[in-house]
Amino acid sequence: MKSKAVENIRVSKVNASGMQEATDKVAVEEPLQIQLQYSTATGQMLKDIAVTMRTPGNDAELAAGFLFTEGIISHATDIEQIRHVEDENLVKVVLQENIQPVLSSISRNFYTTSSCGICGKASIGAIQTVSQFAAADTEAIISATVLCTLPDILKQHQKAFEETGGIHASALFDTTGNFVLLREDVGRHNALDKIIGAAFIRQELPLNNYILLLSGRASFELVQKAAMAGIRIIASVGAPSSLAVEMATEHDITLLGFVKAERLNIYSGRKRITV
Amino acid sequence: MKSKAVENIRVSKVNASGMQEATDKVAVEEPLQIQLQYSTATGQMLKDIAVTMRTPGNDAELAAGFLFTEGIISHATDIEQIRHVEDENLVKVVLQENIQPVLSSISRNFYTTSSCGICGKASIGAIQTVSQFAAADTEAIISATVLCTLPDILKQHQKAFEETGGIHASALFDTTGNFVLLREDVGRHNALDKIIGAAFIRQELPLNNYILLLSGRASFELVQKAAMAGIRIIASVGAPSSLAVEMATEHDITLLGFVKAERLNIYSGRKRITV
Repeated sequence: MKSKAVENIRVSKVNASGMQEATDKVAVEEPLQIQLQYSTATGQMLKDIAVTMRTPGNDAELAAGFLFTEGIISHATDIEQIRHVEDENLVKVVLQENIQPVLSSISRNFYTTSSCGICGKASIGAIQTVSQFAAADTEAIISATVLCTLPDILKQHQKAFEETGGIHASALFDTTGNFVLLREDVGRHNALDKIIGAAFIRQELPLNNYILLLSGRASFELVQKAAMAGIRIIASVGAPSSLAVEMATEHDITLLGFVKAERLNIYSGRKRITV
Repeated sequence: MKSKAVENIRVSKVNASGMQEATDKVAVEEPLQIQLQYSTATGQMLKDIAVTMRTPGNDAELAAGFLFTEGIISHATDIEQIRHVEDENLVKVVLQENIQPVLSSISRNFYTTSSCGICGKASIGAIQTVSQFAAADTEAIISATVLCTLPDILKQHQKAFEETGGIHASALFDTTGNFVLLREDVGRHNALDKIIGAAFIRQELPLNNYILLLSGRASFELVQKAAMAGIRIIASVGAPSSLAVEMATEHDITLLGFVKAERLNIYSGRKRITV
């Protein structure tokens, strides 16, 4: 098991002047197994929930965030303990005695690939999760001018990306453009689960007064995870997919794409953006 | 169900001169359900295998490629028929009467998120698939000079990316740099499964005489899928992960990263590259 986000490797670099041996840095990718322990009528149940390929670091946040954004647990107080098993890529989340996880969305006959996060769910109609924060009491509003400053601030905090060129980031900002939190991971869903998991553990959900900034593209699944955490404004440095736009529109979430220093696109929820 | 890879949406574009309403194109993301029908002692079995978020197009290739790269079926002749159910995002793969799918790698208690493709597999140790083409009879060799020309050729063929800026590609080239085949998808694993599925259906595996070019980063899973198809040279426009390098080294696969017009990095299998 590796505990670092970045590691050194040997590489042969080829360019116009020939080939040179060098040491370079790559983003670490390793499996993390998430287990859930909870009480049943017949005793303690230990259930393997997921194996995700992630970059080590903030594994407890990742596990908690994953369980929350997938709708398996709802409150930080559901958790008695999060045990990070040293020397193994394993996080065991132990629930309070009276708490039952919602495992109904996990089908026993399913699995899938692709960066979709809908693995294990029994039908196409069953892929949507439902947020407890669907109706936000307060609405974040942010100016396009401030939004266009965020990608540069993001870059300054993307330490592992700067070293490797190969790792995603999710970050939170407040509505005046102040940087709040950033997490990096080879899986963009993991980076988002780490952000949401951190807020979930600190009982700081919903995140309806923050801006979520994604270093890459916006997919269906990222919008859905953000919706679970009550996020109302998602800004993405890259392109959205068709389903990301549909989901954002349906959930009344503001979705921005191609956010750059000098421009941005608004795909839904224009009311929260001042120009 | 949408049958196109790209669709028009309304967007508000904000830049220094203000906000304009416009029509723009986004990559379509839609779920595809993959079902497997096979014979058992008690009759026909219909099993839901996966739901993957994909870009419509080449769905039969995607389903066949997925079943092959995940080790569930081994030969094109295992398949009696691939039925693409119109107006539903569903592909049903019907196996020949005497063919049993290998479902042992699918655990009933597992699922996962992230772009890892190891969903449903029962433990961290069980995530590796084994290729029938591990030892290639012939070895592709390619010059670094030719390799550096491939990303530009790739771009010329990335039609959906050109329109949307938000879709991955996998492509095959021969060892003299001639373009052979390209597939695009919002999920990079799907793009690769479509490429491998196309070759699988045509009974053109192993692909040991071709170069696989990936439009993005190289992850563990992409290396593993390529290994299943007997691919010996993987060139990636982006960065590799630590596990991608380890897997490529272990499988004696040549892994290249940051392949650009004027440079490239060799992470493993330098013997197949002439400089």
